[in-house]
Amino acid sequence: MMRSKFDEQLDRLNKEMMKMGSAIEDSIRKAVDALVRQDAELAKKVMLQDEEIDREQKTIESICFNLLIQQQPVAKDLRTITAALKMVTDMERIGDQAADIGEITIKLANQPYIKKLEHINQMASETMLMLIRSIEAYVEKDMDKARKVIAYDDVVDDLFEKVRDDLIAMIQADSANGEQAADLLMVAKYFERIGDHATNIAEWVIFALDTKGGFDENASEHL
Amino acid sequence: MMRSKFDEQLDRLNKEMMKMGSAIEDSIRKAVDALVRQDAELAKKVMLQDEEIDREQKTIESICFNLLIQQQPVAKDLRTITAALKMVTDMERIGDQAADIGEITIKLANQPYIKKLEHINQMASETMLMLIRSIEAYVEKDMDKARKVIAYDDVVDDLFEKVRDDLIAMIQADSANGEQAADLLMVAKYFERIGDHATNIAEWVIFALDTKGGFDENASEHL
Repeated sequence: MMRSKFDEQLDRLNKEMMKMGSAIEDSIRKAVDALVRQDAELAKKVMLQDEEIDREQKTIESICFNLLIQQQPVAKDLRTITAALKMVTDMERIGDQAADIGEITIKLANQPYIKKLEHINQMASETMLMLIRSIEAYVEKDMDKARKVIAYDDVVDDLFEKVRDDLIAMIQADSANGEQAADLLMVAKYFERIGDHATNIAEWVIFALDTKGGFDENASEHL
Repeated sequence: MMRSKFDEQLDRLNKEMMKMGSAIEDSIRKAVDALVRQDAELAKKVMLQDEEIDREQKTIESICFNLLIQQQPVAKDLRTITAALKMVTDMERIGDQAADIGEITIKLANQPYIKKLEHINQMASETMLMLIRSIEAYVEKDMDKARKVIAYDDVVDDLFEKVRDDLIAMIQADSANGEQAADLLMVAKYFERIGDHATNIAEWVIFALDTKGGFDENASEHL
């Protein structure tokens, strides 16, 4: 493969990463809307979109494998390709979690919520922001932005604990709330996980951009 | 690639699938032991083993891609390879869930359990059995065994509901139980998920063995 062909492929990798990033953003946004509006049809769409995201992951992985196999990339490119390979795993998991939220939304669509979803809603906004920022950090090669995402994960973890404690109080107040409280706890857990994955993505961006130190030493910390 | 080389690769695929199957069985077994004995060291091992399982998945995927690219497989082999590609996704998720259980085990290792883990333990045994049977069904090409795994998923789902209701009752009795109850609910959810993945594996075994009908019609139901 000639160098120009290689650059072309790297370019394509970048575009596909942005495309997958937009798809999972869209997926979370729909999942939140469906949850809040109790819209089972929209929730089903989120579950279908997950399959699209899985296919997008395979596309990106095959671009990466081709780049790795057909040309021995230089250290900097090797870091980018490795980071992309790891990032899509986290991105794909986010798609799964959005689908999981969709599944619970469908289950709960025909019953009134036992509580206002304000903190869960806040978790949704915060994790979506983390995700958008982590993808931006990748595209803009902005290490500082990636660091801010990582620092932000605590906010989401604190919100999870708040939601959990609220739900525990709801169960205490009336055990009839139990089943729905357990479901909403799962929803909160999925958002917390989305925050974790956005943090991982940001860590991989830093790995890709970190030009100090050789590939091997830094890779072994992460892989 | 000559036919004998192709068969050799198919053989290797089979061996690696069995190896990955054993690894996830071992991982669940350790996760359960660690949880029951509150053994944080063993739980850490489960979390490390998950990385090994991820690597095994990549190995199997690359064998499958090579088989698909380097020779146009006949319909029967195409079904086997496609099924293997999908099965490893479920197997890898089981590894993740074992690691997730490990993480919660570490968190809870220094506090007495609020309840006996009998139903969770039962969930663990049942899901492990489902997994073992689904891998056996693949190795032994036993469609009947695969069907039994699928029928069994309801047992695990019922156990999950039992655990959930128990935990809700514990929270009702004393809100101080809340945080641990929420963690144990997650553990039960992970086992339920493992049962779902074993069911998926069994469905892929049936897909691989189903020689009636063309590849396309049946593939579209599943893919």
